[in-house]
Amino acid sequence: MHDEPILLTPGPLTTSARVKQTLPQDWGSRDPAFVALTGRVLDGVREVAGAGADYAAVPVQGSGTFAVEAMLGTLVAPDVGVLVLVNGAYGQRIAEICRRIGRHHQVYEVAETEVHDMAELTRRLEDAPEIGFVAAVHCETTSGLLNPLAEIARTVREAGRELLVDSMSGFGALPIDASELAFAGLTASANKCLQGVPGLGFVLCRRELLDRCAGHAHSLVLDLYLQEQALAGDGQWRFTPPVQVMAALDAALAELAEEGGPSARLARYTENCDTLLAGMTQLGFVSALPRDRQAPVIVSFLEPQEGWFEFSRFYDALRQRGYAIYAGKMRQHGTFRVGTIGAITPETMHGFLEAVGAVITEMKQKLIA
Amino acid sequence: MHDEPILLTPGPLTTSARVKQTLPQDWGSRDPAFVALTGRVLDGVREVAGAGADYAAVPVQGSGTFAVEAMLGTLVAPDVGVLVLVNGAYGQRIAEICRRIGRHHQVYEVAETEVHDMAELTRRLEDAPEIGFVAAVHCETTSGLLNPLAEIARTVREAGRELLVDSMSGFGALPIDASELAFAGLTASANKCLQGVPGLGFVLCRRELLDRCAGHAHSLVLDLYLQEQALAGDGQWRFTPPVQVMAALDAALAELAEEGGPSARLARYTENCDTLLAGMTQLGFVSALPRDRQAPVIVSFLEPQEGWFEFSRFYDALRQRGYAIYAGKMRQHGTFRVGTIGAITPETMHGFLEAVGAVITEMKQKLIA
Ligand SMILES: Cc1ncc(COP(=O)(O)O)c(C=O)c1O
Ligand SMILES: Cc1ncc(COP(=O)(O)O)c(C=O)c1O
Repeated sequence: MHDEPILLTPGPLTTSARVKQTLPQDWGSRDPAFVALTGRVLDGVREVAGAGADYAAVPVQGSGTFAVEAMLGTLVAPDVGVLVLVNGAYGQRIAEICRRIGRHHQVYEVAETEVHDMAELTRRLEDAPEIGFVAAVHCETTSGLLNPLAEIARTVREAGRELLVDSMSGFGALPIDASELAFAGLTASANKCLQGVPGLGFVLCRRELLDRCAGHAHSLVLDLYLQEQALAGDGQWRFTPPVQVMAALDAALAELAEEGGPSARLARYTENCDTLLAGMTQLGFVSALPRDRQAPVIVSFLEPQEGWFEFSRFYDALRQRGYAIYAGKMRQHGTFRVGTIGAITPETMHGFLEAVGAVITEMKQKLIA
Repeated sequence: MHDEPILLTPGPLTTSARVKQTLPQDWGSRDPAFVALTGRVLDGVREVAGAGADYAAVPVQGSGTFAVEAMLGTLVAPDVGVLVLVNGAYGQRIAEICRRIGRHHQVYEVAETEVHDMAELTRRLEDAPEIGFVAAVHCETTSGLLNPLAEIARTVREAGRELLVDSMSGFGALPIDASELAFAGLTASANKCLQGVPGLGFVLCRRELLDRCAGHAHSLVLDLYLQEQALAGDGQWRFTPPVQVMAALDAALAELAEEGGPSARLARYTENCDTLLAGMTQLGFVSALPRDRQAPVIVSFLEPQEGWFEFSRFYDALRQRGYAIYAGKMRQHGTFRVGTIGAITPETMHGFLEAVGAVITEMKQKLIA
């Protein structure tokens, strides 16, 4: 047994005892019991997004980025363009995938602390009739910023284009209403706000579009059309599924429902986030985003520009006290990140804040000593 | 808790208590403890193949097929041809991947119960100077056939070409000597003879070749070059790793070493296989392969052409007795399969044979009744 830290990260994150308990079990991947579990999980994923039978939840083995690449490769025909909204590393990654898999794309980039201007987006779409899709990131985990998904969806719809959403870090907590957003595709991850373990992503695909996507994909394993065909046929995965990861997600989805669904989970995460922000502010830290752009998922704090602070020592000292935080990823500022998602509560945040206080004192004293 | 069958399948398979025990733990994917675990697992995978520092073990999230596609996409330059040796569904899958990702290829196909003729392979390579790579399947899990890897490697080498091996279902038990075989790439899976859980594959790549593969890959997530660059830099995965699956494999590799390495494991599997074959023969079943082509991994049995037999009822009845077998995949014959790998012993096989005997009696009686 290794000493298990509390994970204050964007995932893998701290999972519940119940989720963990499902893991040490073998499953036959083609056994009826597992086929039933798969069906239950896919229904659960659709339900989280308020998606009806007009959407398919297609599982993708691998990490979240595998699901993003599968979405772009399958849903975007090779001759159709994508406009990518970028305000952080995950938006950039969408553009990088488009480049690599050979999908024409343009980038509309704003600063990592800003959101896109909808009038400007409309103008860009008017000027580029070859663009069929707009790709957006829901919670930009780079900074922790919440992009205005409803507004983006409306703008894209009014321009007569299709929307692709990377909702990896928000799915399970941030509100998503498929019938209102009417996205073409939206990605989710097992190991973020759904509170499962990593190894699995999903793409919610509008069926009527997916049905027309045979042969689009640049990859066999990432072909969502073929995977959905197989599932619709006999409920089977094409290739070996991560059975333990699926069993954990099955339990995690049941737990999400018992908690009261995404809105109740969002309320808990919001409390976690408020507690963290208040406490860290009191300890002298400054967050990188204005409060109204902050998603209650992960918070970026500016690294103190003082001699006592050094991230790796800060990390190690907190880790010794049982907390794993996350390195920063913003370009303009030196930052570090603290996640507010997972099987954690405001109590966890209070404990963490106490540890941060102690570590600051220790680090400052060492400098003096 | 679901009732947990003994898995007599090609994986996911029955895992040990020790492997299972590692699963219910959280790991920070960028925490030093996990970085160390990753290094240990990659070293362990190389060691299984007797591969020195001239080989890199590159992990690929997802199922085994993801690793096969990553190998073909990364190691084969877009303008180089591949000759695919086919005698089952997994050879065919290699050809299908080549087609989908746009790699020129030819197929040399023989029957599912046959092996390829080395003189013919030599001739085909002489006639096709545009072919740079030969792709072969080690254990063809479709039938359970063992392809003569050493001979294939010698023939390919003498023809001055590179070898790609899908060793998914044999890696960890069937002997592999990288320094002798000198393959360009070879795939392995966490959840077959290594006895871990599914969610992860590996490609052993000859470094000197991999180093020249920047920009080849058709995919961002399946780019082994970039993944190896990242690992060589700071020991990190590019995208979230399946941390629990890795922790299980870490324990599984330790267990493999304690068992005495691949040769000891092969001896146990061979005993499993011999026990199974003897017992099933006695019960009137006929295996699809001659004994000398049978790998001790999975056995294909011909479906009895008698009124009492029906696979799904046979499956259900065995499943009720605690054993999950596997459907057949051969084209010419109706078959079903029984795996001989995993944390199982000849005792397990004896128990299984007893169950089969009871099920046969039951099924025949029901027919009479
Ligand atoms: C918004 C967003 N997109 C994509 C990803 C990629 O996920 P993964 O690391 O699982 O590939 C992440 C991971 O944090 C994310 O936050
Ligand atoms: C020889 C061989 N290659 C590839 C695979 C594909 O593995 P997966 O189902 O994990 O994608 C298998 C799985 O049984 C196999 O036996």
